[in-house]
Amino acid sequence: MKRIAFLLVVVGSLAGVVAFSAPASGHADEPPTSIFGGAPPPGYRDWKLISVAHEEGNLNDLRAILGNDVGIKAYREDKLPFPDGTIIARLAWSYESSEENNKAFGRSQSFVAGPAKNGLQFMVKDSKKYVATGGWGFAEFINGKPVGEAVLKTCFPCHEPAKARDFVFTHYAP
Amino acid sequence: MKRIAFLLVVVGSLAGVVAFSAPASGHADEPPTSIFGGAPPPGYRDWKLISVAHEEGNLNDLRAILGNDVGIKAYREDKLPFPDGTIIARLAWSYESSEENNKAFGRSQSFVAGPAKNGLQFMVKDSKKYVATGGWGFAEFINGKPVGEAVLKTCFPCHEPAKARDFVFTHYAP
Repeated sequence: MKRIAFLLVVVGSLAGVVAFSAPASGHADEPPTSIFGGAPPPGYRDWKLISVAHEEGNLNDLRAILGNDVGIKAYREDKLPFPDGTIIARLAWSYESSEENNKAFGRSQSFVAGPAKNGLQFMVKDSKKYVATGGWGFAEFINGKPVGEAVLKTCFPCHEPAKARDFVFTHYAP
Repeated sequence: MKRIAFLLVVVGSLAGVVAFSAPASGHADEPPTSIFGGAPPPGYRDWKLISVAHEEGNLNDLRAILGNDVGIKAYREDKLPFPDGTIIARLAWSYESSEENNKAFGRSQSFVAGPAKNGLQFMVKDSKKYVATGGWGFAEFINGKPVGEAVLKTCFPCHEPAKARDFVFTHYAP
């Protein structure tokens, strides 16, 4: 049975951040500006769905993993490693019981996405630019602003266990 | 705080089916062919994400609600009632603990989407065609084949509590 696991889930959840391949000119704790020009990539909310997940514990969220066209194509073709230009996005929302749904169901069972959680995360594939981190650059935006490199550096180590899948945990949901 | 509730969740979950506005020529228990020509609408897996949810209990799933372009536009513009041509899709997958993610997190907390669940559900808005069911036609496909009308008729009654939101429970996840 095909399982779906989440790289972004894992990385983002361990430290609330995403790893980042620091450019040679990078200064620790300064916001990285090299990825996406310092802002989330335009149109990411329109990207196609890769999969969904729920994290318990401190995270307590519902999340969706979206991919740009390059990424979705690679997923659907089971193409590894992911080609340069792939971008994978992780959106998360608070995990909330839905009274309205529960009433309709006649039992307490329904949990839905509430307000967006902070920490909009991305992985971008550039096998030349991010050699030190498996070809992946990582970025996170909080209230639209990129987090610092020191934070982002904590991410790649978490992704390493998924090396056999090009450092991506998330499987495509059919 | 904006809550996200699911019409399709509710309807689909109560009976495992979706309500359907029977055409005048319909015969009970015969597969309806009037919606989408008897097959899921082409390209629905590419539609944009409206929201995500988790249902406990017998359903025990993770689910995503997707919308076609007409539907997404209406959602983003808070436009009610939904315009004719809106289609909302509900996909669901089995709810599975991810050992791989849990290892990376160092605790058991991660639940991901497993294999697709049977019952691919749609709502389509046609205010003239589906007058008896709030302007919505409902369809469900199991292994690609439409379920019978008798089953689909159980759906609209569940949606009625959401009349103030044009019979749609699901809110848009920002």
